[in-house]
Amino acid sequence: MALSRADGRAVDELRPISFSRGWLDAAEGSCLVEFGGTRVLCAASFSPGVPRWKVGSGSGWVTAEYAMLPRATSTRSARESVRGKIGGRTHEISRLIGRSLRAVVSLDALGENSITLDCDVLQADGGTRTAAITGAYVALADAIAWGKANGHIREQLRVLTDSVAAVSVGIVNGTPCLDLPYVEDVAADTDMNVVVTGSGNFVEVQGTAEGVAFTREELNALLDLAVVGTSELTRLQQAALAQELS
Amino acid sequence: MALSRADGRAVDELRPISFSRGWLDAAEGSCLVEFGGTRVLCAASFSPGVPRWKVGSGSGWVTAEYAMLPRATSTRSARESVRGKIGGRTHEISRLIGRSLRAVVSLDALGENSITLDCDVLQADGGTRTAAITGAYVALADAIAWGKANGHIREQLRVLTDSVAAVSVGIVNGTPCLDLPYVEDVAADTDMNVVVTGSGNFVEVQGTAEGVAFTREELNALLDLAVVGTSELTRLQQAALAQELS
Amino acid sequence: MALSRADGRAVDELRPISFSRGWLDAAEGSCLVEFGGTRVLCAASFSPGVPRWKVGSGSGWVTAEYAMLPRATSTRSARESVRGKIGGRTHEISRLIGRSLRAVVSLDALGENSITLDCDVLQADGGTRTAAITGAYVALADAIAWGKANGHIREQLRVLTDSVAAVSVGIVNGTPCLDLPYVEDVAADTDMNVVVTGSGNFVEVQGTAEGVAFTREELNALLDLAVVGTSELTRLQQAALAQELS
Amino acid sequence: MALSRADGRAVDELRPISFSRGWLDAAEGSCLVEFGGTRVLCAASFSPGVPRWKVGSGSGWVTAEYAMLPRATSTRSARESVRGKIGGRTHEISRLIGRSLRAVVSLDALGENSITLDCDVLQADGGTRTAAITGAYVALADAIAWGKANGHIREQLRVLTDSVAAVSVGIVNGTPCLDLPYVEDVAADTDMNVVVTGSGNFVEVQGTAEGVAFTREELNALLDLAVVGTSELTRLQQAALAQELS
Amino acid sequence: MALSRADGRAVDELRPISFSRGWLDAAEGSCLVEFGGTRVLCAASFSPGVPRWKVGSGSGWVTAEYAMLPRATSTRSARESVRGKIGGRTHEISRLIGRSLRAVVSLDALGENSITLDCDVLQADGGTRTAAITGAYVALADAIAWGKANGHIREQLRVLTDSVAAVSVGIVNGTPCLDLPYVEDVAADTDMNVVVTGSGNFVEVQGTAEGVAFTREELNALLDLAVVGTSELTRLQQAALAQELS
Amino acid sequence: MALSRADGRAVDELRPISFSRGWLDAAEGSCLVEFGGTRVLCAASFSPGVPRWKVGSGSGWVTAEYAMLPRATSTRSARESVRGKIGGRTHEISRLIGRSLRAVVSLDALGENSITLDCDVLQADGGTRTAAITGAYVALADAIAWGKANGHIREQLRVLTDSVAAVSVGIVNGTPCLDLPYVEDVAADTDMNVVVTGSGNFVEVQGTAEGVAFTREELNALLDLAVVGTSELTRLQQAALAQELS
Repeated sequence: MALSRADGRAVDELRPISFSRGWLDAAEGSCLVEFGGTRVLCAASFSPGVPRWKVGSGSGWVTAEYAMLPRATSTRSARESVRGKIGGRTHEISRLIGRSLRAVVSLDALGENSITLDCDVLQADGGTRTAAITGAYVALADAIAWGKANGHIREQLRVLTDSVAAVSVGIVNGTPCLDLPYVEDVAADTDMNVVVTGSGNFVEVQGTAEGVAFTREELNALLDLAVVGTSELTRLQQAALAQELS
Repeated sequence: MALSRADGRAVDELRPISFSRGWLDAAEGSCLVEFGGTRVLCAASFSPGVPRWKVGSGSGWVTAEYAMLPRATSTRSARESVRGKIGGRTHEISRLIGRSLRAVVSLDALGENSITLDCDVLQADGGTRTAAITGAYVALADAIAWGKANGHIREQLRVLTDSVAAVSVGIVNGTPCLDLPYVEDVAADTDMNVVVTGSGNFVEVQGTAEGVAFTREELNALLDLAVVGTSELTRLQQAALAQELS
Repeated sequence: MALSRADGRAVDELRPISFSRGWLDAAEGSCLVEFGGTRVLCAASFSPGVPRWKVGSGSGWVTAEYAMLPRATSTRSARESVRGKIGGRTHEISRLIGRSLRAVVSLDALGENSITLDCDVLQADGGTRTAAITGAYVALADAIAWGKANGHIREQLRVLTDSVAAVSVGIVNGTPCLDLPYVEDVAADTDMNVVVTGSGNFVEVQGTAEGVAFTREELNALLDLAVVGTSELTRLQQAALAQELS
Repeated sequence: MALSRADGRAVDELRPISFSRGWLDAAEGSCLVEFGGTRVLCAASFSPGVPRWKVGSGSGWVTAEYAMLPRATSTRSARESVRGKIGGRTHEISRLIGRSLRAVVSLDALGENSITLDCDVLQADGGTRTAAITGAYVALADAIAWGKANGHIREQLRVLTDSVAAVSVGIVNGTPCLDLPYVEDVAADTDMNVVVTGSGNFVEVQGTAEGVAFTREELNALLDLAVVGTSELTRLQQAALAQELS
Repeated sequence: MALSRADGRAVDELRPISFSRGWLDAAEGSCLVEFGGTRVLCAASFSPGVPRWKVGSGSGWVTAEYAMLPRATSTRSARESVRGKIGGRTHEISRLIGRSLRAVVSLDALGENSITLDCDVLQADGGTRTAAITGAYVALADAIAWGKANGHIREQLRVLTDSVAAVSVGIVNGTPCLDLPYVEDVAADTDMNVVVTGSGNFVEVQGTAEGVAFTREELNALLDLAVVGTSELTRLQQAALAQELS
Repeated sequence: MALSRADGRAVDELRPISFSRGWLDAAEGSCLVEFGGTRVLCAASFSPGVPRWKVGSGSGWVTAEYAMLPRATSTRSARESVRGKIGGRTHEISRLIGRSLRAVVSLDALGENSITLDCDVLQADGGTRTAAITGAYVALADAIAWGKANGHIREQLRVLTDSVAAVSVGIVNGTPCLDLPYVEDVAADTDMNVVVTGSGNFVEVQGTAEGVAFTREELNALLDLAVVGTSELTRLQQAALAQELS
């Protein structure tokens, strides 16, 4: 018997996805990504030079910072700048995004240049970290193109070795489901974020039992769904990047 | 002889202004305001109850927090959450927005309810604080309407005693100009932010000589321009608020 | 062809494991756990009462804090107390330990009591977070026994619904290996931490590709190894807890 | 009908003003300034060299820091050092003092030297920021003289292009008044701080409606009063600086 | 052979000492104390009520905070509020002052009232902590008198059980000396701060060898000098407190 | 009449003392020191180079950091890293340990090398600061030997000019006692920490009256006891250092 999802989707169906490239005038790459009601503004800042610990290495650096606006959520949260420190969750997600992007970048080909991805959640409806990774890849691709067009990277170098996309999956009322909105996320027994390359290999698998520990079979079913979702996201990223950037 | 402005405007002409109400699904009031390339997301969060120092007063509170996304500007700035403290400029503007809004709110009519205005600059091209005040008023009006519709405020009470709008003016190459974009702002000798009520009185006047001190005549010319600009902004706010909120 | 490991172990063999219960005189539960050269002091502090957000719920709370002494590592690191903030890695691991333990605790049976697990790494040689989880379970079991012996929890309640243990696995020079020491950890292409209950279900699966993305087959091989390791750790935990606590 | 002021002054009369130059033995310039009961210790520290962002520019820097002792006020306030962060008001005033002084300094003539003005309020009775600006100018003048006497600045260079003084004005019970003490300040509807050069031009105009927005006429009346007050302060600064420094 | 001191004093002679009571208009007790060039403003703030951990005890609390203005010293130091944390030396001295004063206060007689002593060094020329203790006692005595005059403490209760004064002593060029100014302090081999009650018993003895460890004989000679100095300071405190407070 | 101590010791008798050298595999010197139930892990980290302010001086630096694990004490304390700042007591003790060690080190003979002593209290039962100094000396001696063995210091240089040990003494129920455990410490009227060189001279004397001020006679008795204790500790340090380090 099929699960009836609140928004009428099939269990292996993504929410409506959109990528708005060039949303910011000044950023070297930018993309407002939407996974249903989740909206994340991804800005890629390209800067010649690298952090001190990489100077002279001939190799570049890609890093990310994730944050939420205070009223992205259904009730207001205090700003981390006001509290004077960054929470554990924010740190964790920033590190995840950075690692995921570096998995598809040749830092040697990038040369001694740095790219910072700022992923700011304007509205949160579940899956913000996976939307951030998926949108940040698009902004990153534009920033690398900018670096080539502006002579910071030699045109023929292959800086991006693959693409990367991410999606959340979870077990909701006993049924494995793809791309959970907030209402399903809070109800899920197990919650997993999976980051997959365009060629179908895994970059990150992060599964957490919220209440009941999960079996090997459930783990396998979730991984199957995640691969379905990221394949579709890969296709949509390519379509977005194939368009002319106004 | 007339100044030739980079964007072809007359010296007493505003940039294109737009207000997108209801930009956020969950916020009690929200408005994406644009003054040319400057885009500020204003979210009004209504919450029953007041800060401890007002409990039992029968009166409410309105406060504001201003911030910029790291890549709102032409080069990336470090996040205040990462630096672990809020800069002086941020504090100063947050306080200005809060004072400006409270000037047109009857806190007694609001009752023991609080409204927090989050003004996050998504893209900065000069005049972010004045855009924030002008947009925050629209979000505030919607949040008060929400408070009435949801039984937190009695329908017949007049919580808003007036409207409020703000604009920047400055002396650019010797000529007083209205609504400065970034390129004019950095070149201005004197920079002034003026907050004016819908009925034409002053709430705040903040003028600063950047290089040369200014005369009483220049001050008068700037105030004249500001009143022209805020009258037009008042009209646009009313038009925006007259529309049905989808 | 078999991988030759630096310490001569088989690929599916754990390092020497030891649990020293009651290492601290005052703590309600404590355990110095060793996974080879990795030594973590786990202290469980039992306190009647719960954090404010749980008062009146009838249910308890279990949380954890992880930290490293500055000279636990081969070169000295600055103290987080001196830097004035906790790093992202520390936050991430503290949250992981807390979630892992809560997966095997009935918070309702615990009642309105709190247990804090402090996991301080005295010496680090790889796998500190998995050693911390595995040792913290032992300290937690003793603290719950203390809570029963001292009348804070009714004797017949089953607070622990299962046991929990964790181990790291990774692909070193192309070969999946169990329980990586530091020298293997830094050389691994993929690094995975797996938290498993005594009954063999998964609580957390966190796999990260350090360089090359990993295939579904590699993922399966790593999960197989992890289950071998955690089964053995479960057996050793039970043996340690079966002894009389002096 | 004239307002009756608590201390018997005319509406356009300053409180008793005094400048004690050389209050500190070691500072290159110092001045204990008093505006009635308001006492601010202004110390100017001259140091060869400039902040990193000005090195090699050939030009100097002048900055200021404002603070209050915890018991400067009628009830004790917590120290900002204890709270671990500087409040918005402190930041705002420090920036105002720095800008006001830089308006009358030729940074090129100063050369690559820095002067820091510390303005510490020992006792607060209204108008602390305007007293601080007015006293800091005197300390600054002495520090520049010290720099010349000690060979850091060439004798014939004109580092000070003008003098600067500041005063508060406000509308108290409907009447515009000059130089408000604390009791009038809290009762004022509109409060304005005005910074004026010795030659009578404006450096800063900061007017705030506390309750009721103010009209253009009221604004003009306040500016008139401010010019009266700063003219007198300019005269007193010159008299103080004309004396031999013991 | 006698040491020749820079300021011509005998080895057992104090610098000129002065106490200016009532230096602040609003504080319940205040005293500007001078030990030669060292000037410390001591403010005692009396407030009904006690910190949370003493509520209901029937007993009061006395605490102290010590700080230096940035230009109290010969070269400027950064503000602790700007650095965002209080240094070890500041903490240490604040705690010392608080302990020293509590040694002569009957907290039971004080009742559930709190007195905070703020000791701010306006100018530092050695011995700031001992001057602070000696001056703070005077401010404390006035604050207790205020508490009695204003009905917070019953008139007949003996809140002060003794008086307290402090002085620094040290071995300069091999000679034990009393009350070291900065030039002697930096040259001293051993530096000792001694806090003594009016009746001649010890509250604190803090001796530190800066270079060479000191012998028991040297320790005895320093203690003898300290007792000479604190006896004289006790006499001067009594004289100051015997005067009418204007 | 003799005091009856809880643990049956004579008033001039130390608790059982042990030094476990080489407790950490990687540290250049390390020692787990025990004074009865007090256990402190002392790690000495040797690093070529000196802090910026000593570069080019030809001379080295020795510093220390003291901290307690959260459950070292009978009830759990919050971590200083979580609170975001280091407490006054921690600062004070870190500075004391550093000063005490530097008193017996020739920084010139050390050359431009730095040694950091981390003293982490694993279990606290009184006298943690004196145990830390005494154990840190042993770790320091091993780190200096390592520096010689590894060519950072010339073999024949005498870096250690003496040894150093410390002990607490106090007046318990009117009787001066040596080496107070926690139960005696909280009950003591006067508490003194004394740091003495191997040759019997004083490095630090820190005595504090907790309740009643102490007389010169009591001070003398406490100093006598301290010298007895540190002589014995010196002997035990020498014995520990005479053994072969495995």
